[in-house]
Amino acid sequence: MTDERRQKIESVLSKRQNDLTVVLENVFDPHNISAVMRSCDAVGIQEIYVLNTKIPRHKKWGARSSSSAAKWLTVYQFENTEECFTELRKKYPTVLTTHLSSDAVSLYQLNLANPVALVFGNEHSGVSEEIIKLADGNFIIPQVGMIRSLDISVACAVTLYEAYRQKQQAGHYHQQRLGQEDYLSLFNKWELNLD
Amino acid sequence: MTDERRQKIESVLSKRQNDLTVVLENVFDPHNISAVMRSCDAVGIQEIYVLNTKIPRHKKWGARSSSSAAKWLTVYQFENTEECFTELRKKYPTVLTTHLSSDAVSLYQLNLANPVALVFGNEHSGVSEEIIKLADGNFIIPQVGMIRSLDISVACAVTLYEAYRQKQQAGHYHQQRLGQEDYLSLFNKWELNLD
Repeated sequence: MTDERRQKIESVLSKRQNDLTVVLENVFDPHNISAVMRSCDAVGIQEIYVLNTKIPRHKKWGARSSSSAAKWLTVYQFENTEECFTELRKKYPTVLTTHLSSDAVSLYQLNLANPVALVFGNEHSGVSEEIIKLADGNFIIPQVGMIRSLDISVACAVTLYEAYRQKQQAGHYHQQRLGQEDYLSLFNKWELNLD
Repeated sequence: MTDERRQKIESVLSKRQNDLTVVLENVFDPHNISAVMRSCDAVGIQEIYVLNTKIPRHKKWGARSSSSAAKWLTVYQFENTEECFTELRKKYPTVLTTHLSSDAVSLYQLNLANPVALVFGNEHSGVSEEIIKLADGNFIIPQVGMIRSLDISVACAVTLYEAYRQKQQAGHYHQQRLGQEDYLSLFNKWELNLD
């Protein structure tokens, strides 16, 4: 491994966040999943939860290519909502959905510097009732236009970058957030990811 | 027109912004253009500039369907950069590009509540040298991941929603921003847009 490559990996790992994740519930289109993963990588999210209760388990999102974000993320796959939430709750005290509901608050009212898991639902039916009941709240991305149609990759990117902005202000990218064990384990794995 | 529809149009027009626009320079993929237009509509941008110096003039982006954002935007098309900038400069004192350059500042350092035009470039080659020379500055969306690949629709949405956030804080959605003449002209046009 070149020094440059080692420095790149160290720099990225030193900015990976241990308190922000994304849950994709029955998101169908692989392009949407890839786009969400790129946004996760871009803001320093390390792990994401892929929950498929209604659609077949996804293939590996091109994880073999080093230009694929999947190669640099830890992806947990579940086919059972309760199991997914049991795991999720071990690390994330707050779980928020993007379901459109009367008690939804604006994205810009959230404190995203606190540990939180953000759930995005199926392209057509949104987040399921089951998840909404298990979650702690809903938020919406405000829209003031004639049409309502931010797609999931855009909605997720806008949300994650608002988290980035808040976490940046809170100093979350200024010092290592991963535990040392996770840091080293990822470092060893990423060393072998090189083409 | 139903009262509900009239109220919707009035509500949207009352939030349209007169001091924020997007310039798309040689953006090739119609899906990207549509996605950018949806984001524009969503944050209350009324007019966008489509500049094609290298690729054929675009068709009408499905503007016939009321679910298309193009139907609710004022789209100016140019094939000449100077002409485009002459028009642009009449309304927008500041023009910023997203070109990756050493003097680029972070999106989050910009004051987007001031009048500004934001230029997004071709999917492969980015914003042209010609535009960079004519513009007032560059900005980047910070990325802390292993791969660098926010696509244009995501980059544009993240940028426009940061503008939304700042403009919301500055009270720009609390009172009509369009001149009364523009407001009425759009109202009359939108009345006829109904299916």
